[in-house]
Amino acid sequence: MRRRFLLTISYDGSGYFGWQGQRKADQPTVEEALVKAMEAFFRQPITLLAASRTDRGVHALGQRAAFWADTTVPAEKIPLALYAYLPEDISVTEALEIGPEFHPRYQCTWKIYEYRIYNAPYRNPLNRKYAEFNHNKLDILKMQEAAEVLVGEHDFKAFCASGNTHKTTIRTIYDIEVLPREGHEIVIRVKGNGFLYNMVRIIAGTLMMVGEGKISKEALRQILESRDRTKAGKTAGPNGLTLVQIYYENLGKGC
Amino acid sequence: MRRRFLLTISYDGSGYFGWQGQRKADQPTVEEALVKAMEAFFRQPITLLAASRTDRGVHALGQRAAFWADTTVPAEKIPLALYAYLPEDISVTEALEIGPEFHPRYQCTWKIYEYRIYNAPYRNPLNRKYAEFNHNKLDILKMQEAAEVLVGEHDFKAFCASGNTHKTTIRTIYDIEVLPREGHEIVIRVKGNGFLYNMVRIIAGTLMMVGEGKISKEALRQILESRDRTKAGKTAGPNGLTLVQIYYENLGKGC
Repeated sequence: MRRRFLLTISYDGSGYFGWQGQRKADQPTVEEALVKAMEAFFRQPITLLAASRTDRGVHALGQRAAFWADTTVPAEKIPLALYAYLPEDISVTEALEIGPEFHPRYQCTWKIYEYRIYNAPYRNPLNRKYAEFNHNKLDILKMQEAAEVLVGEHDFKAFCASGNTHKTTIRTIYDIEVLPREGHEIVIRVKGNGFLYNMVRIIAGTLMMVGEGKISKEALRQILESRDRTKAGKTAGPNGLTLVQIYYENLGKGC
Repeated sequence: MRRRFLLTISYDGSGYFGWQGQRKADQPTVEEALVKAMEAFFRQPITLLAASRTDRGVHALGQRAAFWADTTVPAEKIPLALYAYLPEDISVTEALEIGPEFHPRYQCTWKIYEYRIYNAPYRNPLNRKYAEFNHNKLDILKMQEAAEVLVGEHDFKAFCASGNTHKTTIRTIYDIEVLPREGHEIVIRVKGNGFLYNMVRIIAGTLMMVGEGKISKEALRQILESRDRTKAGKTAGPNGLTLVQIYYENLGKGC
């Protein structure tokens, strides 16, 4: 019986050329590794349709991907069953049966990304793959205040890398939080209905400059309005970025 | 001018065969990597004397090591100067000038180790190298209460691996905290005047069995009194262990 499932997936992006990559033999992608494990378990060809094509080096705790399989395995048994086949840097944490029409990208209600900054005088080897190092003094209050400028529906062209292929650069950010410092760590949490190419990393790079006192809240507003990528800050590294959660109001079961 | 310094060192132990290891060519150690960087910077042979010989795969945020060098570089400039020579999984966060007689192991007042457990139904690829995965339900209150048994001066022979070469197995634990769960993470923090071979990992393995309901507080007391390693729990993995801090009451400067 052909059934459709939605997986929730965690991965350490450090060892991969992104979710999808260029499909070169020597550039492993998360998708390839996961499909390989799934085909070994389900003993049939599997095609994954992911909610988000994360970049090289970017991590996930809540990526989602849909697939069809001819199987009688109950959905809730799938995560543990896949363990034996998955490398240790990929983990499936949930499987749900979904309706045949469900599309994990188009039907997404919101996504949350977190950008983690290690703000200390010296690097910390233990988080170097999961946080961006910044040794400058960062004023979190300033970052929090300025971030409000970005909340709402805007044209985020100034925060979009040039390789962008989206039809429109208008997106809605529901919330940006710059969380209180925990030890030396600062987390920027962004919730939105969708994100442009490198958008969260450019926002993080720009907010760091706000924290350093180089860009004011008013200047940030002008950058947003300029729709000019060259006005915004640098693209912060991929290591600090984690796709944390993707939420669907309706999973379309039984549609 | 020959001067003596004390470094504070962080490292990701994942890629190393311990601080010191067996000195085989294909088994890199933290000490070797650090000495290589230091010799490149100071342009002279360097010998490090570490406070703690951490095992293969164990991490540090507060390892300490002393050395002599003929140099005029101010101590506070050393951490940043070494950056250019160090691999990204080792970081020097502090350098202090110390007296000629100072011994980082014998003069240690106390050390703190943290053992990190990821207690969730499924593995998390992002912390797999820095936390031990345990999918069983752990009762933290039970762990906290039982841990009190270990506080104080005791013969910890039951919590010492057989390769031990210490003259005495008596040690003092000043404090053990099982910190409140943060998300899925549980941290066991142990402060003591010294630790036997694998002692913290055996304590962590045993406390996890307490959390699973397999060992009671009273049984833990009997294990301690038995002085019998076979009575205690398994040795928890090295990945969960981090040497967090080493404190000296007196750094012997100018002795």
